Amino acid sequence: MSFPGNPSRRSAWLLLAGLIWPTLQGCAPARGVGDMGIVIERASGSVAVVENSHMNVLARVEGLGDLSHASLVYSRDGRYAFIFGRDGGLSKVDLLSGQLVGRVIQGGNSIGGSVSQDGRLVAVANYQPGGVKIFATDTLELLADIPAVDAKGKTSKVVGVADAPGQKFVYSLFDSDEIWVADVSQPTTPRITKYTNVGSKPYDALISPDGRHYIAGLFGEDGFALLDLWHPEQGVKRILNNYGRGEKRTAVHKMPHLRGWAMAGNLAFLPAMGRHEVLIVDRESWQEVGRVPVIGQPVFVMAQPDGRQIWVNFAHPDNGNVQVIDVPSRKLIKTLTPGPGVMHMEFTPRGEHLWLSVRDADRVDVYHTGTFERLATLPALKPSGIFFTNRAHKIGL
Amino acid sequence: MSFPGNPSRRSAWLLLAGLIWPTLQGCAPARGVGDMGIVIERASGSVAVVENSHMNVLARVEGLGDLSHASLVYSRDGRYAFIFGRDGGLSKVDLLSGQLVGRVIQGGNSIGGSVSQDGRLVAVANYQPGGVKIFATDTLELLADIPAVDAKGKTSKVVGVADAPGQKFVYSLFDSDEIWVADVSQPTTPRITKYTNVGSKPYDALISPDGRHYIAGLFGEDGFALLDLWHPEQGVKRILNNYGRGEKRTAVHKMPHLRGWAMAGNLAFLPAMGRHEVLIVDRESWQEVGRVPVIGQPVFVMAQPDGRQIWVNFAHPDNGNVQVIDVPSRKLIKTLTPGPGVMHMEFTPRGEHLWLSVRDADRVDVYHTGTFERLATLPALKPSGIFFTNRAHKIGL
Repeated sequence: MSFPGNPSRRSAWLLLAGLIWPTLQGCAPARGVGDMGIVIERASGSVAVVENSHMNVLARVEGLGDLSHASLVYSRDGRYAFIFGRDGGLSKVDLLSGQLVGRVIQGGNSIGGSVSQDGRLVAVANYQPGGVKIFATDTLELLADIPAVDAKGKTSKVVGVADAPGQKFVYSLFDSDEIWVADVSQPTTPRITKYTNVGSKPYDALISPDGRHYIAGLFGEDGFALLDLWHPEQGVKRILNNYGRGEKRTAVHKMPHLRGWAMAGNLAFLPAMGRHEVLIVDRESWQEVGRVPVIGQPVFVMAQPDGRQIWVNFAHPDNGNVQVIDVPSRKLIKTLTPGPGVMHMEFTPRGEHLWLSVRDADRVDVYHTGTFERLATLPALKPSGIFFTNRAHKIGL
Repeated sequence: MSFPGNPSRRSAWLLLAGLIWPTLQGCAPARGVGDMGIVIERASGSVAVVENSHMNVLARVEGLGDLSHASLVYSRDGRYAFIFGRDGGLSKVDLLSGQLVGRVIQGGNSIGGSVSQDGRLVAVANYQPGGVKIFATDTLELLADIPAVDAKGKTSKVVGVADAPGQKFVYSLFDSDEIWVADVSQPTTPRITKYTNVGSKPYDALISPDGRHYIAGLFGEDGFALLDLWHPEQGVKRILNNYGRGEKRTAVHKMPHLRGWAMAGNLAFLPAMGRHEVLIVDRESWQEVGRVPVIGQPVFVMAQPDGRQIWVNFAHPDNGNVQVIDVPSRKLIKTLTPGPGVMHMEFTPRGEHLWLSVRDADRVDVYHTGTFERLATLPALKPSGIFFTNRAHKIGL
């Protein structure tokens, strides 16, 4: 190695090298990412990087555009988050360095996406201009642009994209009542299977944790569309057609999230749209087997990782509350009042804690799921979604 | 900052500082740990640190003692592995630096352990001298030593330790036919609940992925002992009492692993001890509902993360084979012959690949679970167990 200049200059060079070496290696914090996560700060276009072992905020990352209804997914190594914004932005954040490391405006309006089974692709579903775009997770290079156009040539908003086993993405076409399955084994030439007339206006969707059942909510009629990916030849079936049957609905204050369905053992718990109830559905027959009355219109209905309790948050004006349902007895056992505007909840991977965002108090609170004690409170700017990195290993995200 | 000596010495100091700074930060590779793992090299007391995104060996860590039947668990951040050896050693390995960062000889012989729900404790089950010891995951400080002594004062080997929701460890006493549940909410003063007369000689155990059902295999009789942790007041029940009933067993060439049970949807697939069969059991009734004939005595029976296929390896002399069962049809669909001494298998978190160790060929092979194509082969010294870091987020490990 040779260095320019006189000895003192040499010293300065060496000191500089010592200081920048770690930065060049991108290694300011070499740490396990398995206990990290991100909180969306919806009003400021920023996210907070957090860790759940000691319940800390580690960094804030800014410049992510319009995050008013944002979601995110993780790279397979858990290091990077891919964040989907309402401005059509796809942002890539490095949790270790706390930096925005990539950003493309890939459409006009997007609220969701998914990482492929092999981790190499990230798919983004677009409201505007419709369709799905597929990017390389490492470079954010555009690999495929799949327009959503029905047999009559009409374009459609795309919603509810989920990855499925076999290197597939499944998604719904809101305006043309279709569900498409894209096999992206050859990323630049996706092979599409189309299911038509699945029901009126699929508006959101989920896939079961095993990647077998894709379920889309229908905005234009009561009920849901179900595709069994183990038996694609059977086509899409309608389930829960009596979801709201014969009873006058109250106004829907906030569309419930299908991603907020809870799968606990052989049961699914789901928000009853426009009603103060949580529905219980048998996952074999897809028939309703019970209802639990709750304090307001449910938004997210989430199962603890052990399936023992179900946590529920609510639409305005009841969104200061959270209620807990005991699965064995199917009864409400707790009502908490964390504060104004509880937007989202996330469990630590083994379920000992629940994190929830209290938007209008600019706080994230951490509760013990066994004692219901509040353990910590962290500052965040108008927080909404909370996402821990163990999602990197889950099918459908 | 001041430095000793003349300018050239100063330069040397600075250069040294530049070189060691990254090391001091332990940051040689700052990377996500979510796609990393460890392969046990049983004969050499070493482990290979691997990554499954590009299928590489990253480092070898030596000096871990007798790993002839070793297993491991991960810290909640996925960075550290806790490895349990037959010499009673508890070793802590940093996957990022590829270094052994802690080691205690905590007993005379141990084959398993578990990390608590909150990630702060690691429990080790001892054959010799029996009992369970509980250590802090950060320092390896001994926090509790729980002897396994029955009502008559007899000590027992301890097997099958698993973590359970509510900051508990569950384990079996081989010599006194008991199952104990230790609540370690106060780590230095565990509260023990004891179940006696659970069946003759519990020799291994598993806990269901939701942490609800603890199942111990019985060496001294046909059948299994089941504890429903949602209903501990019901005590331990005997299940599958006809496991081998009325039929002459062949000699058991290798004890099947209960951790090798596969839970796929509402079914469990398990090795039939001493027989060339995989049993299918309904998880509601715990009754046998079918059997699949296979090529040899099954050792590990493992479900893909999507529950669609079951992979089986075998005891000597059939341990060069691996067979695949299709879950919907319950039929064998594939026989692979990877090579001599297939010891263990591990799926990538979303199930696109299966890694398996071919001990006698000093290889780890990677197969595509959809095409059954062999994608890669990696060198390893007499490899046995393969463990990916997504285990950090699973209940019971």
